[in-house]
Amino acid sequence: MSIECISNVHCFGGEQKRFRHRSQSLNCNMVFAAYLPPQAEEQQVPVVYFLSGLTCTDENFITKAGAQRYAAEYGVAVVAPDTSPRGEEVADDPEGSYDMGLGAGFYLNATEAPWAAHYQMYDYVVTELPRVVAEACPQIDTTRAAITGHSMGGHGALTIGLKNPERYASFSAFSPIVAPTQCAWGKKAFSLYLGADEAMWLEYDACALLAPATERRPILIDQGTADNFLDEQLKTHLLEEASRAAKYPIEVRMQGGYDHSYYFIASFIGDHLRFHAQHLAAG
Amino acid sequence: MSIECISNVHCFGGEQKRFRHRSQSLNCNMVFAAYLPPQAEEQQVPVVYFLSGLTCTDENFITKAGAQRYAAEYGVAVVAPDTSPRGEEVADDPEGSYDMGLGAGFYLNATEAPWAAHYQMYDYVVTELPRVVAEACPQIDTTRAAITGHSMGGHGALTIGLKNPERYASFSAFSPIVAPTQCAWGKKAFSLYLGADEAMWLEYDACALLAPATERRPILIDQGTADNFLDEQLKTHLLEEASRAAKYPIEVRMQGGYDHSYYFIASFIGDHLRFHAQHLAAG
Repeated sequence: MSIECISNVHCFGGEQKRFRHRSQSLNCNMVFAAYLPPQAEEQQVPVVYFLSGLTCTDENFITKAGAQRYAAEYGVAVVAPDTSPRGEEVADDPEGSYDMGLGAGFYLNATEAPWAAHYQMYDYVVTELPRVVAEACPQIDTTRAAITGHSMGGHGALTIGLKNPERYASFSAFSPIVAPTQCAWGKKAFSLYLGADEAMWLEYDACALLAPATERRPILIDQGTADNFLDEQLKTHLLEEASRAAKYPIEVRMQGGYDHSYYFIASFIGDHLRFHAQHLAAG
Repeated sequence: MSIECISNVHCFGGEQKRFRHRSQSLNCNMVFAAYLPPQAEEQQVPVVYFLSGLTCTDENFITKAGAQRYAAEYGVAVVAPDTSPRGEEVADDPEGSYDMGLGAGFYLNATEAPWAAHYQMYDYVVTELPRVVAEACPQIDTTRAAITGHSMGGHGALTIGLKNPERYASFSAFSPIVAPTQCAWGKKAFSLYLGADEAMWLEYDACALLAPATERRPILIDQGTADNFLDEQLKTHLLEEASRAAKYPIEVRMQGGYDHSYYFIASFIGDHLRFHAQHLAAG
């Protein structure tokens, strides 16, 4: 199947597009969103990937975060993939929970049945998506990339960035799950996707990936202090401790009074896109 | 029933709130949204009302338009009411159409059964809502107000503004229905809400209200040229003709390539809030 543009809407002088394609790594059809800023009419632009959180599709971010305004200002494209493989043939949690299965791919490569057949979101985001984006949007220079995300997607951005510093100029996250091996969401998902061997889990744990990282990149984290998930699931302090232990500097901003919602993302997405645009320009 | 705050979320340094209250004019419970900019912590701020379009509730605008960023910049509150009375007891279109009944109040006072019992959105927006807002948010100075809206809500903003220039410093609209007496949406709704006497309809037709207006206010209109509803329903040119005939100047901006969606509103809501903030400051 070729890549199909399923919508294209004018926004802040650029184009908010959505594409459907057949994913080889996920073995199903996928949809992703791509915003092209007005600068893309004149020249190739770099790209910031945004990975969304539990229950989201490619649409939550593009409709609620107000990112297009800043992408147009800084001249960067923004690409938002879906959060899991999709389709009738894709395994889902039999209990229908929001934190496992569809909408909850955790940006890893599953090794356990029945998940491994489709849940290969790590390969999809790292390897396949940039190729598909380059084909669908030749205005985007996918060799100049940065990555960010929210909650489960913040976990995705940090782990994918830390494991692939040659691919991303900078990483950032809103309200990330920083240590999935130490919270209920992560333990549940990792035990089902990756099996009982917890040593395997550390391959997808941002706190565990800091120390071994040899090539370092700038990292920015925003976390709301009124976030209901902070204490039990997100545990930002674990990343700060790992940062100090690994001597890998990370800017962590605790934002007073903000919660886990898109109102929080909207309030600071401008800072994140400016942060990435600066490092993309310097790279 | 007292006014109940049903949610309060930090956003751009201010607070995005939603309130539920018993409406006297609509004879049902209603919800509205109010964004308080950070300046409201120090002093009273003026208010811009945003009236939404067909099928919307109070939530579409606050989640999708990205207005909070500009409201925080210009120091104005933004209040978004629902688009019709709500509840089991409220009449709805028996055919379930999107352009009549629930979600389609057209910001008028219905005179015909069964609609008249609840569909009094004109009175609600003009008279009751400012009182409720002042009580719920004493940080808002409701004597300093402007009004805007989208599509059906653009019709509402223009007609309410033109009929109440003493209440609003300026009016604006995105993709407004400018002449409901001359398009299918308006003819259907007005015939059911207001009855067969078309002379009554002109009380809620922006084009017809321009000439009799004695006290004039600045008016700004944005309309996308790629809007699917432009030719059949919105008919922006009729407002431009009425403006010339009435010698009532209106700034109409035809925005190339933009459609009817919230991506269009998001692209220009900053201009509208700045326009209103300037006229509120001058008033």
